[in-house]
Amino acid sequence: MKFAVIGGDMRQARLAELLRSDGHDTSVFALDKIRLSEGVVQEGTARYAVEGADCVVLPLPLQSREGMLSSPLSEGLHTVHEIVTALSPGQLVLLGRADDASRALFRSEGLSFTDYFEREELAVANAVAAAEGAVGLIMQETAITIWRARVLVLGFGRIGKLLSHRLRGLGADVTATARTPEALAWIRAYGYEALETSCLDGRLGDFDVIVNTIPARIMTAERLSEVGADCLCLDLASKPGGLDFTAASKLGVRAMWALSLPGEVAPTTSGVIIRDTIYNILREKGLMI
Amino acid sequence: MKFAVIGGDMRQARLAELLRSDGHDTSVFALDKIRLSEGVVQEGTARYAVEGADCVVLPLPLQSREGMLSSPLSEGLHTVHEIVTALSPGQLVLLGRADDASRALFRSEGLSFTDYFEREELAVANAVAAAEGAVGLIMQETAITIWRARVLVLGFGRIGKLLSHRLRGLGADVTATARTPEALAWIRAYGYEALETSCLDGRLGDFDVIVNTIPARIMTAERLSEVGADCLCLDLASKPGGLDFTAASKLGVRAMWALSLPGEVAPTTSGVIIRDTIYNILREKGLMI
Amino acid sequence: MKFAVIGGDMRQARLAELLRSDGHDTSVFALDKIRLSEGVVQEGTARYAVEGADCVVLPLPLQSREGMLSSPLSEGLHTVHEIVTALSPGQLVLLGRADDASRALFRSEGLSFTDYFEREELAVANAVAAAEGAVGLIMQETAITIWRARVLVLGFGRIGKLLSHRLRGLGADVTATARTPEALAWIRAYGYEALETSCLDGRLGDFDVIVNTIPARIMTAERLSEVGADCLCLDLASKPGGLDFTAASKLGVRAMWALSLPGEVAPTTSGVIIRDTIYNILREKGLMI
Amino acid sequence: MKFAVIGGDMRQARLAELLRSDGHDTSVFALDKIRLSEGVVQEGTARYAVEGADCVVLPLPLQSREGMLSSPLSEGLHTVHEIVTALSPGQLVLLGRADDASRALFRSEGLSFTDYFEREELAVANAVAAAEGAVGLIMQETAITIWRARVLVLGFGRIGKLLSHRLRGLGADVTATARTPEALAWIRAYGYEALETSCLDGRLGDFDVIVNTIPARIMTAERLSEVGADCLCLDLASKPGGLDFTAASKLGVRAMWALSLPGEVAPTTSGVIIRDTIYNILREKGLMI
Repeated sequence: MKFAVIGGDMRQARLAELLRSDGHDTSVFALDKIRLSEGVVQEGTARYAVEGADCVVLPLPLQSREGMLSSPLSEGLHTVHEIVTALSPGQLVLLGRADDASRALFRSEGLSFTDYFEREELAVANAVAAAEGAVGLIMQETAITIWRARVLVLGFGRIGKLLSHRLRGLGADVTATARTPEALAWIRAYGYEALETSCLDGRLGDFDVIVNTIPARIMTAERLSEVGADCLCLDLASKPGGLDFTAASKLGVRAMWALSLPGEVAPTTSGVIIRDTIYNILREKGLMI
Repeated sequence: MKFAVIGGDMRQARLAELLRSDGHDTSVFALDKIRLSEGVVQEGTARYAVEGADCVVLPLPLQSREGMLSSPLSEGLHTVHEIVTALSPGQLVLLGRADDASRALFRSEGLSFTDYFEREELAVANAVAAAEGAVGLIMQETAITIWRARVLVLGFGRIGKLLSHRLRGLGADVTATARTPEALAWIRAYGYEALETSCLDGRLGDFDVIVNTIPARIMTAERLSEVGADCLCLDLASKPGGLDFTAASKLGVRAMWALSLPGEVAPTTSGVIIRDTIYNILREKGLMI
Repeated sequence: MKFAVIGGDMRQARLAELLRSDGHDTSVFALDKIRLSEGVVQEGTARYAVEGADCVVLPLPLQSREGMLSSPLSEGLHTVHEIVTALSPGQLVLLGRADDASRALFRSEGLSFTDYFEREELAVANAVAAAEGAVGLIMQETAITIWRARVLVLGFGRIGKLLSHRLRGLGADVTATARTPEALAWIRAYGYEALETSCLDGRLGDFDVIVNTIPARIMTAERLSEVGADCLCLDLASKPGGLDFTAASKLGVRAMWALSLPGEVAPTTSGVIIRDTIYNILREKGLMI
Repeated sequence: MKFAVIGGDMRQARLAELLRSDGHDTSVFALDKIRLSEGVVQEGTARYAVEGADCVVLPLPLQSREGMLSSPLSEGLHTVHEIVTALSPGQLVLLGRADDASRALFRSEGLSFTDYFEREELAVANAVAAAEGAVGLIMQETAITIWRARVLVLGFGRIGKLLSHRLRGLGADVTATARTPEALAWIRAYGYEALETSCLDGRLGDFDVIVNTIPARIMTAERLSEVGADCLCLDLASKPGGLDFTAASKLGVRAMWALSLPGEVAPTTSGVIIRDTIYNILREKGLMI
């Protein structure tokens, strides 16, 4: 098959190399700042790169800001429009977390696309990388070992589950929160201390580290005022985040917002995950065996 | 509050004692073979036991066979009808896995009921007990240690997840199967070997133990013929089960069907779980704080 | 090479089959109650079996009672003397836990021997099987799940370490005891609760299960009187054991003495372990490559 | 009691604060760059600080270079001699890893001392911090997740054991090496892949990360030439180290030497560990209850 990989960060760069080493013709565009391994075609325009490609992979997220293609590894600036016009109907376009304007643009040009970030297998593997990145941050940012640290994980979704598992593997004393009796039962089944999210008040002073994974303003000023002086608060929730950073700053609470951990901490593993997800999509569409 | 616990096995017996030790008035019926702890009212008829009860707990499953109340701890035989006529509309009836005929009977008498087995928190905790029971069976029934054993877990639902976790904690080499890319991603995220359920053929000879958790005829005669001579096949799936026992017998494959493990292996823990689930139900209905 | 396996239980039976399937000539004696796999020579006298053998493997332990060879899988009774007279100086004799009289007997006949039970790699692997057997017993003998059970492990030697690891893998809340600051540090390093053995008094009422691994009378009458009504006390220490069973019986404490777990719970794995240990001994002596 | 803490890094600073918060009179010297918590006496000379102290804690290691007290948190330079002359016979001196010259100096002044680094409980807890620091480094320095990474741990002593445990808790595929059958048995008992140290050749190309914990030149030029292009080699062994860094550099192998991880990654936890060790020493000497 022929693949084109357009824009993106180190994950897309690794993806292109992996596709090539699997034997596929692979061209890239807007990854010009780095030198990819032999066999990956890096020369030429967007139009040249996508020419004849069965599958075109766009970045995750698609845009850096409105209308602009996310391309931190390119010397140039590129618009989503520029890419869209290079594509032909019939090409399978894979993109991640495109905004409504971009989606409309693709549709207006008769291009069909699949959001690979919505694939559960990518989300799970991404959550592993995010959990690991969070562990690394806690190690760097505290003066204590994770061993014997009292850690509170807010939320028991994908990242909450995988982070709790890893923290316990490192010897932390893990408490996780959830709202439903079901999720609380899972927390207990895996052997963590369970706390109802609604019963947080009055308990936040007991922890050395608090990690939020819930995309809602859960760590309010009032709750932050309970947090211990040496406690690190880490927010992994995507915008608008779950922590009142202004209040944290006023209260002198150590707070960090860690976004895009998967791409930063483990681009090679992330590239493998994206590749596997793309192959799953192609298999389900009958385009690969 | 006043509770009545009617019929059932050691789990219901423990439940009655727990409710009493939490300070609730507690009467039982059809648990006459054993002597419960002080304070639980064991005397009298079904009607006497349920008289004035705010909440009446029936067995899990409700019937032993058609029309008969499950009551292995009673000297007598009792019909579901006998219990139904003792109840009054307005009493909260909690039952587990009632068949359609019984459900119709309750409705015809104007009795509303809640199936506590459908509660996810009960199902999760039950799955823990089932997983642990399966571990115990493997220990008893094989001449090898679970340590370093190659174990295949078919299905990655509640029991599959919790069983894989425990087997690995004991040092087994765990492979788990699933159908969807999502579930396969979770299998990998937890560090087990992942195998697509559709790719089982030709791989079944590699395992010392195979545990099925999928309620579908997955271990057919053809697949059983692949299984090694010393391999133990354990089926945890509820009726009709996932293993062709007739074929297993003909082929000389060691196969066991393990049902109702939770009640057998850990009645006390199961009693606690049922109690907690009942309290959750009562809280959600505003009957308890 | 030629091996002779004389007496013993299912572990020795499996050992003989393994040696044969590795391509060695293998004869057995005093394993006549069972039928071994093809190729293992089961016929004839002790003298016939050891004739020309490079290595002769005797049971573990050597004697059942004074002067008698341990041979539970033989219809006949055999003396250690009978075996000794069949052997020739120059044959490598491997035995396990021989008493002083037997050792003297071997020496008086000019036979040199190696105690394979004193090999650390056998002891470690045996401890794995013992730890697993203890887990199985706890599952069978209690009405609770190991999950969330509060378990006290007395002693942090080989079995204590491996048992604590497995109990935690199953979700128990593990406390381990030791005497030295060093061992207590290891207990904490692995994440268990640490308790000094000298500080046991007044704490024993907190546990659902107490497992002793220390070969000293640690669970005295006084301490047993502290133990909770539903608590299971398991003694894994070899004779004279660490638990006052007479006192336990008077106090109504549930107490069990579990010896020879490795041979009982996992003869096949134990056979593999003995085989590997024998090969290590032969390699160190330059008799195998 | 009265304590004096002289010199050292953030661990000694935390130690002083902990001793004070436990209610002991605490004076420090040569920690003048930072402001310690209230109650710790920071003013005055070395002589003033140690005046009347029951126990004087010196840094770990004692010297930064020959004759000089290790005091990275002091604006000034201090000699070991300066400290020695301030002390009085009868004071309990605790120091860590003093060189022979320093030891002779103490003895010539009639000062008795105890090396707290030789205490096994400190070494174990230090190894936890070192293992965790190594995990953090691997996360930072590789483009892959530890999850699913193939990691080789050379040596199965304190750090090797604890590091293997943590890597597996994070989902790595762990192989550990040892020389003795006993240590190899422990590696297998904990479920890692075991490899004899003498059989390394020809296997080093299989790993994503190689961590050495053996204080011997194990990773020679020849072995480094086997290592994969993306493999990270981490050396945790103290001087002279186990890795030929000159050869690594020539071969283009990514190699790092990570010393003093405990003090860097977790000064607070290390302070607690030193405090606990000091209390153990004092209890054994009958100076504390």
